Amino acid sequence: MGVSIGELAVRFGGELNGDPLARVERVATLAEADANCVAFVANPRYRAQLAATRAGLVVLDAASAADCPVPALVSPNPHATFARIATVLHPEPFGPPGVHPSAVVASSAQIDPSAHVGPASVIGDGAVVGARAYIGPQCLLEAGVRVGHDVRLVARVTLCRGVILGERSVLQPGAVIGGDGFGFASEAGRWLKVPQIGGVRIGADVEIGANTTVDRGAIEDTVIEEGVKLDNLIQIGHNVHIGAHSALAACVGVSGSTRIGRGCMIGGQTGIGGHLTIADGVVITGRTMVSHSITRPGVYSGGIPYEEAHTWRRLVGRFKRLESLAVRLKALERRAAGGEDLEEDEDDE
Amino acid sequence: MGVSIGELAVRFGGELNGDPLARVERVATLAEADANCVAFVANPRYRAQLAATRAGLVVLDAASAADCPVPALVSPNPHATFARIATVLHPEPFGPPGVHPSAVVASSAQIDPSAHVGPASVIGDGAVVGARAYIGPQCLLEAGVRVGHDVRLVARVTLCRGVILGERSVLQPGAVIGGDGFGFASEAGRWLKVPQIGGVRIGADVEIGANTTVDRGAIEDTVIEEGVKLDNLIQIGHNVHIGAHSALAACVGVSGSTRIGRGCMIGGQTGIGGHLTIADGVVITGRTMVSHSITRPGVYSGGIPYEEAHTWRRLVGRFKRLESLAVRLKALERRAAGGEDLEEDEDDE
Amino acid sequence: MGVSIGELAVRFGGELNGDPLARVERVATLAEADANCVAFVANPRYRAQLAATRAGLVVLDAASAADCPVPALVSPNPHATFARIATVLHPEPFGPPGVHPSAVVASSAQIDPSAHVGPASVIGDGAVVGARAYIGPQCLLEAGVRVGHDVRLVARVTLCRGVILGERSVLQPGAVIGGDGFGFASEAGRWLKVPQIGGVRIGADVEIGANTTVDRGAIEDTVIEEGVKLDNLIQIGHNVHIGAHSALAACVGVSGSTRIGRGCMIGGQTGIGGHLTIADGVVITGRTMVSHSITRPGVYSGGIPYEEAHTWRRLVGRFKRLESLAVRLKALERRAAGGEDLEEDEDDE
Repeated sequence: MGVSIGELAVRFGGELNGDPLARVERVATLAEADANCVAFVANPRYRAQLAATRAGLVVLDAASAADCPVPALVSPNPHATFARIATVLHPEPFGPPGVHPSAVVASSAQIDPSAHVGPASVIGDGAVVGARAYIGPQCLLEAGVRVGHDVRLVARVTLCRGVILGERSVLQPGAVIGGDGFGFASEAGRWLKVPQIGGVRIGADVEIGANTTVDRGAIEDTVIEEGVKLDNLIQIGHNVHIGAHSALAACVGVSGSTRIGRGCMIGGQTGIGGHLTIADGVVITGRTMVSHSITRPGVYSGGIPYEEAHTWRRLVGRFKRLESLAVRLKALERRAAGGEDLEEDEDDE
Repeated sequence: MGVSIGELAVRFGGELNGDPLARVERVATLAEADANCVAFVANPRYRAQLAATRAGLVVLDAASAADCPVPALVSPNPHATFARIATVLHPEPFGPPGVHPSAVVASSAQIDPSAHVGPASVIGDGAVVGARAYIGPQCLLEAGVRVGHDVRLVARVTLCRGVILGERSVLQPGAVIGGDGFGFASEAGRWLKVPQIGGVRIGADVEIGANTTVDRGAIEDTVIEEGVKLDNLIQIGHNVHIGAHSALAACVGVSGSTRIGRGCMIGGQTGIGGHLTIADGVVITGRTMVSHSITRPGVYSGGIPYEEAHTWRRLVGRFKRLESLAVRLKALERRAAGGEDLEEDEDDE
Repeated sequence: MGVSIGELAVRFGGELNGDPLARVERVATLAEADANCVAFVANPRYRAQLAATRAGLVVLDAASAADCPVPALVSPNPHATFARIATVLHPEPFGPPGVHPSAVVASSAQIDPSAHVGPASVIGDGAVVGARAYIGPQCLLEAGVRVGHDVRLVARVTLCRGVILGERSVLQPGAVIGGDGFGFASEAGRWLKVPQIGGVRIGADVEIGANTTVDRGAIEDTVIEEGVKLDNLIQIGHNVHIGAHSALAACVGVSGSTRIGRGCMIGGQTGIGGHLTIADGVVITGRTMVSHSITRPGVYSGGIPYEEAHTWRRLVGRFKRLESLAVRLKALERRAAGGEDLEEDEDDE
């Protein structure tokens, strides 16, 4: 059972300090690992735990190697190397190829024979499922959906009509891709639904979290490029375009027609308004309100950390009276200037 | 194939500039439209695109008509007219009348023969489904649910026991209507569940977005009046009442027992506290915290736009020291007043 | 039909003022109650409604008893006593013991004969369902899931592989427990998925709201202790630990590896960063940003209530110019001090 650490070193690269024939079976934390386990150190602040570890193999960087009392695999990127090893030791469960008898599959759907379609799943007319795709239990692929090879729909994923999903993408339970966008015309105090006839195109190697929603386009498509990672409970409005390899943390909301660049990182609970453009390589920290476009890469913020409630109430009171503070300051400035007219002041409006 | 633009003009009104026998088949954007397509201009900033369009018909207002090089339908509300045309050209998919063999329908349920019940759906005792209703795949209507005529449950919608849903309402996948409200009695450091026995009543022409949740009432009902539009990932607490034709953008949370008026518009990620009243016609911009009632129509805000991270950190630092700023200002004022006692100051607490 | 109020008094304690043989059948509000109904007064501001009530029984505290014109049950905790009475009068619906024929249950799963498994549910290899558990329609229990006795999965609940759920816990529709955490290693501008091999352990008497997501651990488990109450649309990241009897309101997000103490109360739309520690007994009001640990019990806040939009815009403008305000104040202070150097000022950075 397990894999020899020598084989791991050959397969994933890195310098091995230790007996290449020693075998490991699973991953664990530094603290919990025994001789059958692989652990890793990517963050220097965990390096102190190295001394006590009993792991069978620790993946670490060169700077930590000298402190490691057990076999070590030295990697320039220990986290990535560890991820690859974990994938070998803990492969995702896969169902048998073929369609579960309780699934409902339209006769015009094309399911690759190597794909798995789980119990209680429903696949509509003309849908296409690629090789080795895993369609977990209770999933829905409406008519015309196209799913690439090696896709993994963990369970209970909804792909509405015509959604296109690239190879190797992983969708967590409850994700809804291709629901109608929020499009209504106002008429005499009522809202008239505007049919949402665009689609959703999702690239390869995308991950979409549990209960996240991605709306279909109003006329043209909503687009999520390859390598994008969306956490749980995110809302992506219609006609949004997210550039390759951007990552959005949980509970972010992106309003319609906004374009997010490549390689962006967006912190949790951030809200991004509609019809904006966010440049490539932008980092936005958590709980930020983005109400206008960001044209240059950089780090942007908008959240105010908590205080003890009594202190916070006083601060909010002061904030609400900022106008008065400014007026009083100006009065003092006038007096200090001897009553003569001050020049135009930036605080005047 | 398609529809003549003359027929569209007759059916939906407006002055037609162009050959009434020309036919169109689908909608498109101004930029992408070809001679088979209908496009529209509602926003003056897109008027410049008119010159280059090759659309078969453009719906626009009188002010834009002169700039249109192709057939035009002049409407006082181009967006609404376009919505109606799109509905004709792109009707929502509809399944065959009747119950899919994989659906599980209680014998005491009453399904109108013209309604469609999709695969893997479950309909409980005594549930009633109206004429021409579309119950998509994997939906759940628990016992006693009543669904009006022409309702559309796109897919995987959950209506818990006794929920009432008005005619023509549209619910997107993952919506959960009638889950238990968050009601617990505190007792000796523990929480005791208070049974949630109220229902949910939803009016006609309501839209509810993907993965939005509407809790059942604690004792009386949660109520959503006709024409209300809820976007995705919204939380509506128990016993909330939302007035007709109000629209809430994605990720809004409304706490229990709050009453929102008619014709309100509430921006994304706004949070509204419990037991509040929001007047008719209130507009709340995105990311606003509503912690007390709003008694007059108007526009209300509470979000602070982002800054570059370094600038933001300085601002937060200044904000956290506002108390000190105010104290220092007051000291200067005292000194300027010659040390004599100032009158009571609004900044004192 | 119904229950005598004398029996309720004996069963749940409290002093009864009224005929013990009178019977009640259901609960209602004070205003709506008739002689067949039980109502309660826990909040003094509703005491005024007592005079007009026609309830068959009112549960109230000693201070309100004299004002009650109808039979009263005096309790030191009327809300808790009412909750118990409501549970008797309005038992949760329960399906017949056994597995619905449309459910798909692995032959190696162990379903207690007294448990109910609803239509279209799917139960995987080796899953265990305890006595009297209610597994509603369209639920999914993946391989290795263990569900305690008297659990209630209302409908369409997803428990991913290996999730452990304690007795009497209640999960609302759409909840997803054990989806993959958001774990990726960065490598050359791309994200490499780190397999999420930890589990989720949930204690007894936990409630989890509709469409709430609880991620599985990266290596070790995500843990939710007994008595925790999670409202709807909450995100719990991987390896979070929530102490017993804490309650989180809707739309809260908790980032990975954060540890929340026992008996905490966290208001809606609050966001808690990753790798933090929140002490026991902490109260956090709604819409607070928690970006560093909270080490002492107390009340903490971070939300700023709305203003009319015009006023708010001016305040935001003032806020954005706080730096300038501080600089101007300092200039005045220098001048007042006669130009001599001031001592180091806390506002300098």
